[in-house]
Amino acid sequence: MSGYVGSRLVSTHAWVLPFADGSAEMRELLGGKGANIAEMIRILGPERVPAGFTITTEACVAYMKRGRVFADGMLEQVSQALSVLEAQSGKRLGAGDDPLLVSVRSGARTSMPGMLDTVLNLGLNDESVEGLALRTANARFAWDSYRRFVQMYGTVVAGIEGARFQEVIAAAKRRRGVSLDVELDLDALREITEDFKRMFAFPLDPREQLERSICAVFDSWLGERAAQYRRINQIPDTWGTAVNVQQMVFGNKGSTSGSGVAFSRDELTGAPAPSGDFLIDAQGEDVVSGTRNTLDLSEMNARMPKAYAELLEILRALEAHFGDMQDTEFTVEEGRLFMLQTRTAQRPAQAAVRFAVDAVEEGLLTRKQAMLTIDAHTLDTLLHPTFDPYARYSVLTRGVGASPGAARGAIVFTAAAAVAAAELGDDVILVRPFTEANDVAGFHAARGIVTAEGGKASHAALIARGLGRPAVTGASELEINLVDEQVRINGTVLNNGDWIAINGSTGEITIDEVPLVPAQVSTHFQTVLGWADQQRTLGVRANADTPEDARKALELGAQGIGLCRTEHMFLGERQPLMAAVILAEDDSARAAAIDALAPLQERDFEEILRTMSGYPVTVRLLDPPLHEFLPRPADLPVGSPERSRVEALQETNPMLGTRGVRLGVLFPELYEMQVRALFSAAARVADATVEVMVPLVAYEGELALARELIDRVAQEQGFSAYTVGTMIELPRACFLADVIAGDADFFSFGTNDLTQTGLGFSRDDIEGRVLARYIEAHIIDRSPFETIDVPGIGQMLRMGARLGRRTKNDLKLGVCGEHGGDPDSIDFFHNSGLDYVSCSPYRVPVARIAGAQAALRAVKDPGPWTIESDRPVLADARANGDRRLAA
Amino acid sequence: MSGYVGSRLVSTHAWVLPFADGSAEMRELLGGKGANIAEMIRILGPERVPAGFTITTEACVAYMKRGRVFADGMLEQVSQALSVLEAQSGKRLGAGDDPLLVSVRSGARTSMPGMLDTVLNLGLNDESVEGLALRTANARFAWDSYRRFVQMYGTVVAGIEGARFQEVIAAAKRRRGVSLDVELDLDALREITEDFKRMFAFPLDPREQLERSICAVFDSWLGERAAQYRRINQIPDTWGTAVNVQQMVFGNKGSTSGSGVAFSRDELTGAPAPSGDFLIDAQGEDVVSGTRNTLDLSEMNARMPKAYAELLEILRALEAHFGDMQDTEFTVEEGRLFMLQTRTAQRPAQAAVRFAVDAVEEGLLTRKQAMLTIDAHTLDTLLHPTFDPYARYSVLTRGVGASPGAARGAIVFTAAAAVAAAELGDDVILVRPFTEANDVAGFHAARGIVTAEGGKASHAALIARGLGRPAVTGASELEINLVDEQVRINGTVLNNGDWIAINGSTGEITIDEVPLVPAQVSTHFQTVLGWADQQRTLGVRANADTPEDARKALELGAQGIGLCRTEHMFLGERQPLMAAVILAEDDSARAAAIDALAPLQERDFEEILRTMSGYPVTVRLLDPPLHEFLPRPADLPVGSPERSRVEALQETNPMLGTRGVRLGVLFPELYEMQVRALFSAAARVADATVEVMVPLVAYEGELALARELIDRVAQEQGFSAYTVGTMIELPRACFLADVIAGDADFFSFGTNDLTQTGLGFSRDDIEGRVLARYIEAHIIDRSPFETIDVPGIGQMLRMGARLGRRTKNDLKLGVCGEHGGDPDSIDFFHNSGLDYVSCSPYRVPVARIAGAQAALRAVKDPGPWTIESDRPVLADARANGDRRLAA
Repeated sequence: MSGYVGSRLVSTHAWVLPFADGSAEMRELLGGKGANIAEMIRILGPERVPAGFTITTEACVAYMKRGRVFADGMLEQVSQALSVLEAQSGKRLGAGDDPLLVSVRSGARTSMPGMLDTVLNLGLNDESVEGLALRTANARFAWDSYRRFVQMYGTVVAGIEGARFQEVIAAAKRRRGVSLDVELDLDALREITEDFKRMFAFPLDPREQLERSICAVFDSWLGERAAQYRRINQIPDTWGTAVNVQQMVFGNKGSTSGSGVAFSRDELTGAPAPSGDFLIDAQGEDVVSGTRNTLDLSEMNARMPKAYAELLEILRALEAHFGDMQDTEFTVEEGRLFMLQTRTAQRPAQAAVRFAVDAVEEGLLTRKQAMLTIDAHTLDTLLHPTFDPYARYSVLTRGVGASPGAARGAIVFTAAAAVAAAELGDDVILVRPFTEANDVAGFHAARGIVTAEGGKASHAALIARGLGRPAVTGASELEINLVDEQVRINGTVLNNGDWIAINGSTGEITIDEVPLVPAQVSTHFQTVLGWADQQRTLGVRANADTPEDARKALELGAQGIGLCRTEHMFLGERQPLMAAVILAEDDSARAAAIDALAPLQERDFEEILRTMSGYPVTVRLLDPPLHEFLPRPADLPVGSPERSRVEALQETNPMLGTRGVRLGVLFPELYEMQVRALFSAAARVADATVEVMVPLVAYEGELALARELIDRVAQEQGFSAYTVGTMIELPRACFLADVIAGDADFFSFGTNDLTQTGLGFSRDDIEGRVLARYIEAHIIDRSPFETIDVPGIGQMLRMGARLGRRTKNDLKLGVCGEHGGDPDSIDFFHNSGLDYVSCSPYRVPVARIAGAQAALRAVKDPGPWTIESDRPVLADARANGDRRLAA
Repeated sequence: MSGYVGSRLVSTHAWVLPFADGSAEMRELLGGKGANIAEMIRILGPERVPAGFTITTEACVAYMKRGRVFADGMLEQVSQALSVLEAQSGKRLGAGDDPLLVSVRSGARTSMPGMLDTVLNLGLNDESVEGLALRTANARFAWDSYRRFVQMYGTVVAGIEGARFQEVIAAAKRRRGVSLDVELDLDALREITEDFKRMFAFPLDPREQLERSICAVFDSWLGERAAQYRRINQIPDTWGTAVNVQQMVFGNKGSTSGSGVAFSRDELTGAPAPSGDFLIDAQGEDVVSGTRNTLDLSEMNARMPKAYAELLEILRALEAHFGDMQDTEFTVEEGRLFMLQTRTAQRPAQAAVRFAVDAVEEGLLTRKQAMLTIDAHTLDTLLHPTFDPYARYSVLTRGVGASPGAARGAIVFTAAAAVAAAELGDDVILVRPFTEANDVAGFHAARGIVTAEGGKASHAALIARGLGRPAVTGASELEINLVDEQVRINGTVLNNGDWIAINGSTGEITIDEVPLVPAQVSTHFQTVLGWADQQRTLGVRANADTPEDARKALELGAQGIGLCRTEHMFLGERQPLMAAVILAEDDSARAAAIDALAPLQERDFEEILRTMSGYPVTVRLLDPPLHEFLPRPADLPVGSPERSRVEALQETNPMLGTRGVRLGVLFPELYEMQVRALFSAAARVADATVEVMVPLVAYEGELALARELIDRVAQEQGFSAYTVGTMIELPRACFLADVIAGDADFFSFGTNDLTQTGLGFSRDDIEGRVLARYIEAHIIDRSPFETIDVPGIGQMLRMGARLGRRTKNDLKLGVCGEHGGDPDSIDFFHNSGLDYVSCSPYRVPVARIAGAQAALRAVKDPGPWTIESDRPVLADARANGDRRLAA
């Protein structure tokens, strides 16, 4: 408990802390809400914030560990805190004269809006309701509050179905012949309340009400709804929630009262004017429940000018104090403004970027501070069209948001149909069970891609992100019938040509006509990117295979190409040539096929190198499994020699088969042709900087052999402006990195394959069903293909990096897996001493910002790698909620 | 050169060393032959061994590095050594009066019989031949020697085809009307010699003869024949060969002269009587060339009793001195015995075992010393029938010796045919392109297995070794036509029912009727195994899935079962039940299918546990890829729901897919059924010791989940005599081993899968063509599936072992991959602090001996694992000739 001792309530455990003793730094212990309430009291003074206390997250953790039993001493501490609250307010819980009423609200470390339970107006019973009526001189208000409390307690604590309460109210209205809630008179409210109390064992003892409500809030953390939210938002189950007990103030005391939510700036655009909603004569729940039509915050100026002016001043003060956009709740009780909570405002990327720029201009934040207010994960959306944020639509089904941006178009079921439609100028969405190499033409032609299988790292997702096409993958509710060209989704049948809209950021699919908003590369965004580049030490390159990709990469700020895959140059119409190389019956047939490929390859290289003149280009020699170049056996005549050769080359586990440098060892002619073409092209381009990369090296001898070949070709061609390096993408290579570095000028960590082999997980086979089940079972909190698995794969990478640098101090280190565009992974790469990341062009801006943020947050250099020295990172893994580490 | 300085010839490099200055310890520098000659001089005195000198292996290495150019100073050192030899012998090379003749022989560190070149009688020319004739008073002998020299020089040094020399001799015989070599008179020999000399530029200068002969011997190291031998026998190319220049003695000086080879004991049986061959009036090459019918060594007693008695005494002395069976060459020149070389005798396993036992009884060796004379790799043959070692047969083709032992039978092409034939009592050999899980019944039925694909770790090899069936895999010259039931091998066509014989130790396939010799589990072998068990600290268990396997394992000395695979219990006739579990449409259908499996599973376990009562049994929960349990999609009706379910479960890379604990996470009912059945069975067996093993753990949370399930079932059943552990077979698990150890009582390293994932090598796909090419390209020296890859996979294992023990000091550590039966790997496992290895029952005796040898050779404890502290093992890797490490 060190660091948190300081309240008189604390003995061995601070299960409970008064708001006045807390602060924003104590978020882990007090939860976000409790910590921020405490901080508000420090800034605004106790008169602006209703008093109360927080039951800590540790109390919740203890409750969970004991099997839903309160920690020893907790209730005593609650009693003490309550006594203090009663003394300060001069009111008493359940008192018949001037009763204290409290709200009991959840408050986890991270906001989980609507997921956890809340009980308002606690403390009312048959006695205190009369006291409240007396003190407020408003019996109807008192009984309406009592009715609300019994109803809320009934649903939240006693677990009664909400509809049963609605039925009682409806019956009372029928009996009286009225139709609105406000038309119910005092008698009616009394009658309803009595009816409610007969529905379950409502405790009249306010202490019992409080204890059971605390239980209910703790229990709501364990509920299915909250658990699911945590899974989606990667919040550890082990955190638990705090509970805030706060004196009630009342917005429902007539026309001088009201409740509202207020953002310190426009929450959708970031424009520097407060925004929000409010209601006269209402409690907070009326504003957020959507049952009443709220007023725009600006109208408050006319209705309650003093409170409005105070609110604006407070919003400015809170923003200045917390250094970020704020999202607040407030209540006006008979003209007096109370702030109930404040938190950092969730906002879309454009608002985040605008706020950052404005905050610096206003002198509110430094550039560095401003940059850290941006959630790098969201920035992708700025580079793609999005659904209109004001649009209303219903979601037909939801898959994985695999490539950001939104698109609309007519459904087609084949790549060929997509190409045909695109030629006619039609917008289409390509819908497939899954996609393969030969579908890529269809990706270009379609506006967006939907697959029923796969995840964020499936083939469809990778290609779509590379091309900047929105994609939804793993939409498992799609039943696609390719024969009838029909897809059935939750009972809705869609045919070829029917229109759908998809949101590749959220995974949503809808048949509603959602308007799209075009990409907004605002000057604000450019400004922030400029700041990031000044701050960043980690280089950002792009993975680009074509001149178009390369141009896009430069436009988005890439500092080179970190991965130019050559295999795409052998697919499509060139596939038969490549098949001929592999299936050649003798050396001369093979040589002829290779000769045919060489000029094409050389032209490819020259265009890319010319585009990237002055920037480094890492060209990876052929990598993919053999079968990608071969016709399918079933397409060849039975018994033909070609078919039997193709069948002989089929592999059980192509991912672990004849690919990468293994192809180069088996068919050195192929690598030689590639290197020759590359150097010939480079020799014709001014300022070409060529890095030749050998993929899938497990043995140091593989790289030695490849390097011999590359150096020999260079010598024969009199070419010298190149370096040679290797992908480090197999666990063995990490262990032998110091030896391998002897033949390498650079390493590029292929974290996709390193993840696959290090975990023994095939991305294609595991990412869907198995990983979903793993996340559900709390074994992992997200896909290791999305964010690098720090304690396992991350350690391998770090080991490889350190060993490599031990041999060559100046060994250049990069990453070219998909993780290179993931902000959390980028943070890890920065702290591991890497020189650059390389990601798909559309992720480059994200990586630029994330790289800068990593530099700003940077921990000190972790020193030479040993399993011991790096083990502290397990603490991070623990924070990420890994099942066993967290236990 | 430290340690080898001591001869006056040495300056900076000892390119040359006189025999008298060498010793047996200098094998690396002098080669085996040179070192042993030097040692013989030390033991027997200079009068028994012709004098000479060794040109060192370092001179050869320098020659290779300079591109076939002698090292600076080497020729000068040769000249000096030659002068000394001339002075000591009182003869001069090339002298016309009393010429010195020398032999020039190769001598690598390891014996490579017949692979490297030799030149005899060097120093003869037109002048010295007359001197030799004069001194020996035997002109015919002198000219015969000259003729032999020119011929040998011509073939070895000048590269003339041997047949051309034979033609000249044949022509001379025709002219003279004679038919035998000995009928050629002096004139004929002169004439032949002159004819030979006209065939190429024969150098008359004896110094030039010597230099060119040294070149030729060095070059022979680089020749294709020697390179291939090294590949097969895993000898590094970088070692080079020494060259021994030795004064000639002559066994061809009439009836008091002769040459022979002598073993100190019977080389086939090990019986304690010298054996060998000899010839009167002949040089050594006549004995070994097979052109003359040799006499048994024992006949020497009658012909040359004094030399024979001396030879016997020398053989005893050499054996005692070297502490091992010796294989010698000798020459008797006019009654005087000269020893030309001695080396450790290569011998079959039964001879090695018998020698070890006899040597101890004779007081020649201690038990420890005796045990180290046995090559553990060969012992397998003692447990299987073998080809009669005296049989002559021609090899039709050669594959990989994948499971030891020999078998004969009629060819069948399907498992079903094998079963049918076995029911009729017929002996059959199952010949398949490759084998699959469903072929296993055929393995039981067949006498032996042949596959065209795969290697030592292919499915066929693993199953065959487990069953003790001989197997030849990867016989790539087989063209198998399953439709016509015909196999074509190098032009020979064999049909269903044709007989073949296979030798699974050597990979040979023949159609000759080779007699088979039954397995010989001699009392000698039992004696040695008993010694080994006393010496051994490493436990030896067996991999056994059936009661029969378990009984066999016990019989062969296993101390428990280290791997009881349960998946075999779900194949065959139970496959439909298992398919029903996986394809169940709802929970109740799944539960019903599982209920049907449970009693079968329980019976399986009970039988095995009863057999192994008192010994530990490690039961691995279900592991293999889903598809192994499923019908093939093609066998199901098109469009049927079952087919579409099966198709949905197809995996691109099953090895990295839904297997192991992933199955357990997806279908916990399956694991629960297995555990319940196991504990129910164990509860009924006295002294059952059950170790439950969870396979394929990557994440600590997987094991935690499985352990929860296992402990819960145990508690429900009131069973407690069990432990829980996991396979460590994924790289991530090695990195997290300390965390994983928190939930494990033991680790069993699954080195097969660890090799596959650590190297990214699919055993099925890579082992054939790719690894062959890798060995050829000197990237590796053997398959990593045969002997563990120490610098890579070995390091991972060691890291996992050390981290695991850091958490639990008493964590039990074992290995259950195929490497558990490989002597070299066993040595590594012993030195890595493992508790036991587990291998197929027929490898158990090998592992027992290899474990004892490892203990005898043991290096000191390597201390806690860090990449630094373990890096010295790279020195071993270097010695093994790994391409880059060796550079």
